[in-house]
Parts: sequence; structure tokens; C-alpha cells
Amino acid sequence: MSTTAHGYAAHSKDTPLAPFSFERRDPRENDVQIDILFCGVCHSDLHTARGDWDGLIYPDGTLYPCVPGHEIVGRVTAVGSHVSKYKRGDIVGVGCMVDSCQHCAACDEGLEQHCAHMPTWTYNSPDRITGDNTYGGYSDSIVVSEEFVLKIRHAEKDLAAVAPLLCAGITMWSPLRHWNVTQRQRVGIVGIGGLGHMGIKLARAMGAHVVAFTTSESKRQDALRLGAQEVVVSRDPAQMAAQAGSLDFIVNTLAVPHNLDTYTALLKRGGTMTLVGIPSESHPSPSVASLIGMRRSLAGSLIGGIEETQEMLDFCAEHGILSDIETIPMQDIETAYSRMVKGDVKYRFVVDMASLKQAA
Amino acid sequence: MSTTAHGYAAHSKDTPLAPFSFERRDPRENDVQIDILFCGVCHSDLHTARGDWDGLIYPDGTLYPCVPGHEIVGRVTAVGSHVSKYKRGDIVGVGCMVDSCQHCAACDEGLEQHCAHMPTWTYNSPDRITGDNTYGGYSDSIVVSEEFVLKIRHAEKDLAAVAPLLCAGITMWSPLRHWNVTQRQRVGIVGIGGLGHMGIKLARAMGAHVVAFTTSESKRQDALRLGAQEVVVSRDPAQMAAQAGSLDFIVNTLAVPHNLDTYTALLKRGGTMTLVGIPSESHPSPSVASLIGMRRSLAGSLIGGIEETQEMLDFCAEHGILSDIETIPMQDIETAYSRMVKGDVKYRFVVDMASLKQAA
Repeated sequence: MSTTAHGYAAHSKDTPLAPFSFERRDPRENDVQIDILFCGVCHSDLHTARGDWDGLIYPDGTLYPCVPGHEIVGRVTAVGSHVSKYKRGDIVGVGCMVDSCQHCAACDEGLEQHCAHMPTWTYNSPDRITGDNTYGGYSDSIVVSEEFVLKIRHAEKDLAAVAPLLCAGITMWSPLRHWNVTQRQRVGIVGIGGLGHMGIKLARAMGAHVVAFTTSESKRQDALRLGAQEVVVSRDPAQMAAQAGSLDFIVNTLAVPHNLDTYTALLKRGGTMTLVGIPSESHPSPSVASLIGMRRSLAGSLIGGIEETQEMLDFCAEHGILSDIETIPMQDIETAYSRMVKGDVKYRFVVDMASLKQAA
Repeated sequence: MSTTAHGYAAHSKDTPLAPFSFERRDPRENDVQIDILFCGVCHSDLHTARGDWDGLIYPDGTLYPCVPGHEIVGRVTAVGSHVSKYKRGDIVGVGCMVDSCQHCAACDEGLEQHCAHMPTWTYNSPDRITGDNTYGGYSDSIVVSEEFVLKIRHAEKDLAAVAPLLCAGITMWSPLRHWNVTQRQRVGIVGIGGLGHMGIKLARAMGAHVVAFTTSESKRQDALRLGAQEVVVSRDPAQMAAQAGSLDFIVNTLAVPHNLDTYTALLKRGGTMTLVGIPSESHPSPSVASLIGMRRSLAGSLIGGIEETQEMLDFCAEHGILSDIETIPMQDIETAYSRMVKGDVKYRFVVDMASLKQAA
């Protein structure tokens, strides 16, 4: 009735992640069983493992052991009797969700991340049938309801660099699409990290004129290489002033408290800045005069739905868009976390799950 | 070359408004000369007279003498040679603006309030030709460029109650239209004052289900009379909780610092709360999690353009919408200001300019 999976788990908020074996259910009628090839390393993984979001994102905190990982690419090994979309051998992806109620207004609109009854997160979330805590992608296999499995059309050699699309990619794609970014619009991407570097690539491929904002002059060349037409060092008031009132739309990826007004001032009349990062402490209160004076909006966006995730993956396959990654063995996860906290990664770590087998 | 106008002016920030005579230009080719019948009393008048907005709204502060008033209804007495839309005897209105550059993108879109070269405000603003400080509606006449004059189609007996539409009315109408309020949408109006009471009437006439928010149980019956289908006392957490996630759109008229999250929490997924009041000190910083978790937006809106002001006036004439007013003589303006600050007016003071002639 189950298969033993091998992975890495946090066993408490203050101990390093360590090897952990656990049972994955055998596929239910609608389930897809997947051998995990690669799993991206997201800031959410670290925050959940460390218990940083207890009470903030997770009402019941982090349940230990916790197996993080929600940027999953793998190969189908078995399917339930009612599964029609996938077959053994298919290359597939799994993102931040593995289930939802499937019948509320949000689910009906393909916005499962806003499920009125809470989506089942890929890790640290109760399974809708058994109530068991979900375990994520830092493991060699996973079993997921067909509706939450994505088709991957990229070439096999690129699969490691596809993994971060499942969270970082869709987190940027969804606001760019929802706020109707179109060709030649001037789009700002604030922060050039795991999220921001995907935002630059996606907005550019949509035909936008991309202005990247970074605190560091050292990222200028890299931002241009990623596709930005302009790079602004946000600490330089003259560079910022030169962009005043010039942007149609901004996606702001910064999760550290900062002065939002310095960015809303760059929006054209009627422009929107969408936040995708939740700061641990509040941002300084944004200027109401800046919103009123130019009919600007400040908004938020949360990952994306399944249908739009598939749309994003297909778009990326068509346009040759991948994440810029550094592949690591599972055993190096703590070093990767330390470097990620320091911003020392261009731009996403991806765990090669073959490393689990080598160690065994 | 000019006509002597009689009105009331602030002569300094800390002296009461007092009688003041000054020259109005004779009509230029495109000008309309108007005998003012009524002028509404807006909070902006008081703030400008008292110098409250020096450096905040007005870079150069309030210039004295200052003749406030931008909710003007009057009768045309003469027109310039190129004026085609108005003739002597027409009943017309003038709102917050008397001119703009007329050739920037905002002006081309009919959003003169966002003129890239600053609209010429009806008072305390430099005339675009002479540079002279503009004088507003607390006077017996005014001369305004034809493009900034509105046609009034209401019955003559209702003209006093039309005056507040020119600022309070359009300030509520513009966001309700811009954010596409439609029939049966659930629309929140926060604050039942000069602005809010118009918001209730306009949203209701658009076919929305209107939920009015007030701090005072004593306003419940009045809010229902104005057209609200539901009234929520915002100090009551149970009443607020009952509205959680239920509103498509909110217009928030409160200009005092307050917790915005208590209202954004009432928005449906994808909903917007638009602020129309600028607080003297910042609101507490709004929750980013509330925006992200439900893809909500926080926006701002500033009065409205000339075309949409005409549209609003025509809509109000058609639907029999007027402001609830208390008419006062010009001589009582300081008493009116004192009562307005205390919220002791239902819901707008309007000066009857006949009072100026009686005193003369």
C-alpha cells in the first residue's frame, strides 16, 4: 500500500536537515507517481524548515519532520486507473500545491492558490484524505493528484533548470499576465534574485521593455545578460529620478522592509506595483498622496494557478526560457541555505536527486 | 477690462475669513463669465484657508488673500467670441479646475486633474496666462475657460444641492466608474460625510449593493435613507467580521490615519480599495499578506476629469441625485467651518451667494 521514499528533512527548527525515510502512498485512482529528478531550493523551504513562518503563514507552525521542496521535476513511474493525462515515462513537474477543494469559485477559475478551503501545499500541509502532513520534493519520489501535475516540454538536458519555474517562474508570470503586460510596455522588476531573474526573462520574452532594479552595481552586466534593457541601481537617487513616472507596471520581489514610495513614484499615471514578497516586519507606510496623485495601485500576488502554470511552462519551452541555476547534491543543502541567505547564488540552487542514490 | 467681484477671503492662516473685493478679468475669447448662485463648502477650502497643506499639497503654500470655493453653480452672464457651448442665461457649474495644458496625454484622455503640467486649480493656483493667483467660488462671479465649465441639467429649485456634486460628487463617481462598478456588485463606502453620502447615492443608483461603514451607530438610519442596503459600525468587530471577503470594491473617504487592513480584509479576492482622502499623518502600514493572499489592490483616486464630471452631472440629473445640504449665508462661513470639523453637518454646507448682495 506504500513505497518507502528517501529524502532530507528538518527534524526541528534549529537542527540541520538530515536524511529521512518515509512512506509515500501507492497511487490512488487519480494519482501520478513520480521519481523526482530535480528540486529547486526556494526561500520558502528555508523559512519553513526553520519555523520562521509559525503563526505568520502557517497557523499551526511547521510540523516536524518537515521535508521541504516545491520546485519539482521528475519522471512518471506509475499512474492510477483514472489518470488520462499522463503515462509512465512522462517528464512532469509539481509546484507549490498538490491538491485543493476543486469546487469553490477560485478553483473553478483555475486559481487553486486562492482555494476557499485552502490549497494543500506540497509540504507542511494536511492531506485532504488522510490528514497526514505532506512531504515535499527533497526526496526521491512523490505521489500527486493528476490535476496538480504539470507537463514539461523542455529538452531532457534542461530539466534541472526547469525546476525553479514551478515556483519562482509562476510567481512572476502570474502578475505579469494578470496585469496584462503587453509589448513595448515599460516593466520594472525590483530585486535580481531567484524571483527577479525569472521576472526579467519572462517580461522580456513577452515583449516588454524591462528595467531591472538592484542595490548592487555589480549586478548590472548580469541583469543586461538576463534580458533587461535598462538597469537602475536603486541606491542612486539620480538613476531613480530618471525613471520617475515612466513605468507601466512593477513587480517588486523584495521581502525586506523598504520604502515602497521610491518605486511607486516611478509608475506612470494608473500604474500598478505588485508585491510578491512578504516582509518579516512591515514596510514603512506607503504614501497615500503618491497613489491618489497618479491613480496608482499597490497590489499583491501569490504564486499562480495550475492552468497558468502550464501556460507559463509551455511559453518557457517555446521561448527557450530556463532558470539560471547551480546544481548541488542533497547533502549540501545547509551550505546552499547559508549561501542563499547571503544572496550568494546565481540565481537558484537545484538539488540533483541522483545524489540521494549515490549516498545510499 | 475687468469687473469688481465681491467675496470672502482668508487674509492669513489664523484670521477669520472676511469680505474681500477684487477684479475678475473680462472674458477672453474662450471664456464664460458666471454669476455665482451657490458654492459648496469643502474640507479643502478650510485646509487651504488655514495653510494646513503648505508644502504637502501646495509647494508654495497658500497665497493670501485666498478666496476658497470649488463647488460652484451659477448663471452665465457673458461669453467670449469663440464660445460655442454656452450662452447668456445658461445654468452652469465649475469644479476644482479652471484650466490645464490641454495637450498632454492626460488632458487628451480627459483626465485634466492629472495634467502633466499641473491643472490650474480653481483657487490658490497661478493663472496660465497672467500668473495671477486664482480666486474661487466664495464670491459673486467668476470667469472660466469654456472647456472647464459644466452644463447643469437639474431643475432650478435644486441648484444649491447640485453644487457639492462638483467636488464631492465627482470624487466618488470617478473611482466607482474607473474600477467598473456594475449592477449587484457589493460596494463598500467608508465614512458617511460630504464624500461618503454622495458615494452611497451614486453607487446605489449604479445598481450596486451598498454597504456603508461608519464609526457611529447614530448614522445607521440616515445611511439607510441615503440608499445603503447595509450599514456596518466599524468599531464592532463582529459586524466587520461578518463582511470579511465579501466586497468587490471599496471607496474609503477617511482622511484620518486608521488601520486600512480592517477594510482590505473585507475585499473579495481580486478586490480593490481606493483611497480618496490624504491623511495628515501616515496610516499604519497596510498588511502585505492581506494584499498577496487575495490578490487585492490598494489604490488612490483624485477628483475626476471634465468629461466624466459632465457624465456624472447628467447621471445625477437623470436619477434625481442631489447632495444633502444645509444652506448658509456667506457671513456664517467660520461657524460652518467649526461645525464641519466636528462632523456636525448633514452632509454639506452650501453658501447662498445672494447673502453677499443682501449684506452690501
